[in-house]
Amino acid sequence: MAQGKAVTADMQASVVAERPAGTGDRRRQRGEASIQRIIDAAIDLIADEGLSSLTMQAIAKQARASNALVVFHFGNKENLLRAVLQYLSDQYDALWTSMVRAPDLSAVQRVTGAVECGRRFARQHPKWVSVFVIFGSDRKSMQIYKEIGLPGDLAYNAEASDLLAEIVRLGDYTGVDPRTLAESLNYIVQGAWYWGHLNPPDRESEIPAKTIATLLHHAFPRHFASA
Amino acid sequence: MAQGKAVTADMQASVVAERPAGTGDRRRQRGEASIQRIIDAAIDLIADEGLSSLTMQAIAKQARASNALVVFHFGNKENLLRAVLQYLSDQYDALWTSMVRAPDLSAVQRVTGAVECGRRFARQHPKWVSVFVIFGSDRKSMQIYKEIGLPGDLAYNAEASDLLAEIVRLGDYTGVDPRTLAESLNYIVQGAWYWGHLNPPDRESEIPAKTIATLLHHAFPRHFASA
Repeated sequence: MAQGKAVTADMQASVVAERPAGTGDRRRQRGEASIQRIIDAAIDLIADEGLSSLTMQAIAKQARASNALVVFHFGNKENLLRAVLQYLSDQYDALWTSMVRAPDLSAVQRVTGAVECGRRFARQHPKWVSVFVIFGSDRKSMQIYKEIGLPGDLAYNAEASDLLAEIVRLGDYTGVDPRTLAESLNYIVQGAWYWGHLNPPDRESEIPAKTIATLLHHAFPRHFASA
Repeated sequence: MAQGKAVTADMQASVVAERPAGTGDRRRQRGEASIQRIIDAAIDLIADEGLSSLTMQAIAKQARASNALVVFHFGNKENLLRAVLQYLSDQYDALWTSMVRAPDLSAVQRVTGAVECGRRFARQHPKWVSVFVIFGSDRKSMQIYKEIGLPGDLAYNAEASDLLAEIVRLGDYTGVDPRTLAESLNYIVQGAWYWGHLNPPDRESEIPAKTIATLLHHAFPRHFASA
């Protein structure tokens, strides 16, 4: 397990790090490109087929890479699954950071950004959301989710709760529990992701966003417009 | 596929039908009991391990039955998975029928029953909910969900929407779209099931029910108390 984590952290650094142009280290760049191609191929396969039939060979074929290259970069399927979930979590975190933590935003804008983040991520990358849902589906991948994905999900909820508490103070609102409200919003975002995965025609539905707008207006009528 | 469906319908009839006491047909009763024991074993295995590693042999072992008996009753894994989802859907339908369609209930009581149905099912049978979530996770089981589970889910939403429309008429409410509100409630129920599966400590959370109460009170203040 510790070894798996070390490999993942290493790959994460190489996948996520900024790539300075013209370093001359072409071999490293080719390595990074093939790592990313394999991760993308695994995401496509998981979203389309699930985890039951996923093999390193199928991923290699999908990535148009040799089995040896996939094994060279990831060692085994568990490490590759860790790299996939780490990559998706990093992508979500980057979007969250840009929409919620950008300087000079008001608390209201940050809350709006947090809500919009879940929605934009799902619209831009429905397959990524399917992969998140699918990771919750068997014991091994769930263990990976619990290590890599769940702590982030709980931290986003806590951050949303802090922002809502700030609005309570700003507006002198009474009778609003920020933690409860943050969890309400989380249930709707999770429901939208999960239901959109089960029933793709509803992926573009405006109803989760409207429902959230109703709850925010109900709690903070002077800070959020009605839906 | 047609054959698979026929076998499933047959099994469903034998599993779900009322069992008259003292028919003397002990062999049929033993058959029904072993079918149910195998379905229960499959549910436990799927909830704990997921679908990736599920085999007919593992199910037989969990059910303390022979491989031959499992094959005799179900033929193959796909038929067994169909029987599992049909059984769970029938259980949900029985609870929904008792809580939403009982005679002499008012529309408000039926809506309250519909909301409580999802919650009670999840509290009484967290493993059943996990199995529902897990069925959405790979292509084959998703296909089974789309045939056996999704039509019911959509029908429950339509039924809830009709009940909400009745309350709109009863209360002469304006500005409430029953279909939108029914879908809002569905997102919260789906979110509660999915998030409770991902993060079991939150399975007992009161927040989904409170969120629904807030939305119902917001829409129908003279018919639903505030949360």
